[in-house]
Amino acid sequence: MPPTAPGPGILALDFGGTKLSAALTGGEAPVHWQALLRARSEAEARVNLQTMLDLAYRLLEGRHPAAIGVSFGGPVNFVAGRVICSHHVSGWEDVPLRDLLQSEFDAPVVVENDGNIAALGEWRFGAGQGCDSLLYVTVSTGVGGGWVLNGHIFRGADGLAGEIGHTVIQPDGPVCTCGKRGCVESLASGPYLARQARERLSQSPHSGRQLREMAHQEVATITAETVAQAAEAGDELARQVLGTAANALGRGIGAALALLNPRRVVVGGGVSKSGAFYWRCLRETVQGHVLPGVTVDILPAALGDDAPLWGAVALAEAELISSVDSDTKG
Amino acid sequence: MPPTAPGPGILALDFGGTKLSAALTGGEAPVHWQALLRARSEAEARVNLQTMLDLAYRLLEGRHPAAIGVSFGGPVNFVAGRVICSHHVSGWEDVPLRDLLQSEFDAPVVVENDGNIAALGEWRFGAGQGCDSLLYVTVSTGVGGGWVLNGHIFRGADGLAGEIGHTVIQPDGPVCTCGKRGCVESLASGPYLARQARERLSQSPHSGRQLREMAHQEVATITAETVAQAAEAGDELARQVLGTAANALGRGIGAALALLNPRRVVVGGGVSKSGAFYWRCLRETVQGHVLPGVTVDILPAALGDDAPLWGAVALAEAELISSVDSDTKG
Repeated sequence: MPPTAPGPGILALDFGGTKLSAALTGGEAPVHWQALLRARSEAEARVNLQTMLDLAYRLLEGRHPAAIGVSFGGPVNFVAGRVICSHHVSGWEDVPLRDLLQSEFDAPVVVENDGNIAALGEWRFGAGQGCDSLLYVTVSTGVGGGWVLNGHIFRGADGLAGEIGHTVIQPDGPVCTCGKRGCVESLASGPYLARQARERLSQSPHSGRQLREMAHQEVATITAETVAQAAEAGDELARQVLGTAANALGRGIGAALALLNPRRVVVGGGVSKSGAFYWRCLRETVQGHVLPGVTVDILPAALGDDAPLWGAVALAEAELISSVDSDTKG
Repeated sequence: MPPTAPGPGILALDFGGTKLSAALTGGEAPVHWQALLRARSEAEARVNLQTMLDLAYRLLEGRHPAAIGVSFGGPVNFVAGRVICSHHVSGWEDVPLRDLLQSEFDAPVVVENDGNIAALGEWRFGAGQGCDSLLYVTVSTGVGGGWVLNGHIFRGADGLAGEIGHTVIQPDGPVCTCGKRGCVESLASGPYLARQARERLSQSPHSGRQLREMAHQEVATITAETVAQAAEAGDELARQVLGTAANALGRGIGAALALLNPRRVVVGGGVSKSGAFYWRCLRETVQGHVLPGVTVDILPAALGDDAPLWGAVALAEAELISSVDSDTKG
């Protein structure tokens, strides 16, 4: 589907755990950002909401948005337009975000969680274009995702579809944030990668020379990014740690392929930028899980951290602009 | 959705690995069988096709079917109406079954694989009625399944969605028929259950008293059904074996819940009839995998071995009768 003009500008808002982003699209095809502003997310919902409103008013400069699409970093009741909670920011418990923004801007609003909306963003504007079934996976502090099936977000019965991070792939594995053992998230996330590397280095004082050098011998400062850089430079310990994480993610994706047989899998998030070695391990594991007769593309995300923002545009277009069009025409 | 009259009778055909079934529906609501015939499936495609045609002609008694729905026990190219192959019966490689039947009966035909079509059957007429997202799982010689999402079969990019039997839940587990290790099928199928019980009995000559009695001391004759009966009677070894299989299935279902968040899971096939102890183990494992905020019903299949046949009626109705209706009305 080629990008078409969504009419007047769509206001896209992304409430992330660590940053707030707001953008306004131009009214002409192809869809493009007219302006984009960012701010740091603070630990309190009220503060973040006020900051976001400030960003929006600065973008709008007195104009009226055609529609507003909102990505929220946490579970959302899509039908009711309510945020259920945030796992990073306090004060978001059961907030009627759609109604608040509708009153504020006198424009139609859709609110969706970041995994689902980023999937739609990649499908409409990014690495998922042109395919009829897409699994989007984001690997950073946590592991999340979303589905686009037959051109629509598939939310599941409770809006919790796409939680690939909480599929169990190793029943005796580490305890996950969700309480279960051996979830993909507990074995493939950025914090796991960093912790594994630090533990392995302290156990084996002579291993991981390049990794130690990159961390200036300060093992405690090692992040997932350091591990990825050392692995790309050929450090054996970093490769083992990174390979294990890629393997864990690949097994979760393998389960998703057996269950849903999507045409494409798009992987984003900070850890997905770990380089060629990471991607080789990931693709090898996935291919090892594919059933005869199945073909699947595993691609890096194209929109990076802006996938939720683009998804907010796509969702507002699909739910608000298109429906207004067809109401008018019908 | 209450059953509505599909107009003139629908001919439903089920090509199973071990039996052939054909049924004709009455033309009035609610949908009901006017007649049902069965025959044994032989090892050759040509023979089975001829037997099925004989069954169909006996049912039709010279009448003309409004539409024909076909379930096939093996992979199918739904769009092309072609059987890809059978894993049980030779000669089914790339057979244009839809066109063959269309020419034979001068009526519209749909052909679908048994996992997908049984899912639709349970959704339309059985334990899945009234829910918007359903995972159907069948556990017998193999472990298969299918999805109904938003009222339609979800086939996946290559028609291979629903292969829950080939999600890996124990990477160091037994080798599966698909070549991978520790698939659900390799740990939860009927043959696995029987083999596990026989091995455990030969290793521990004093265990499994009730199980041995039920098998008249002939350990080699033990089937999954014997294990289930002994487990229900309280035999400890049988309970361990059956519990392990239920646990394996529950973990596969747990992965499906995390990934798709369906409202309902319906479990059929011979092994699903293993009794209260089996179901308790299965439900406990599934509940242990459910994320906060998710509610799901796990129910036994209501249509038993006839789920594919009922699904064939539902699919013919949806794809052929409804579309004819809307063409006429439009």
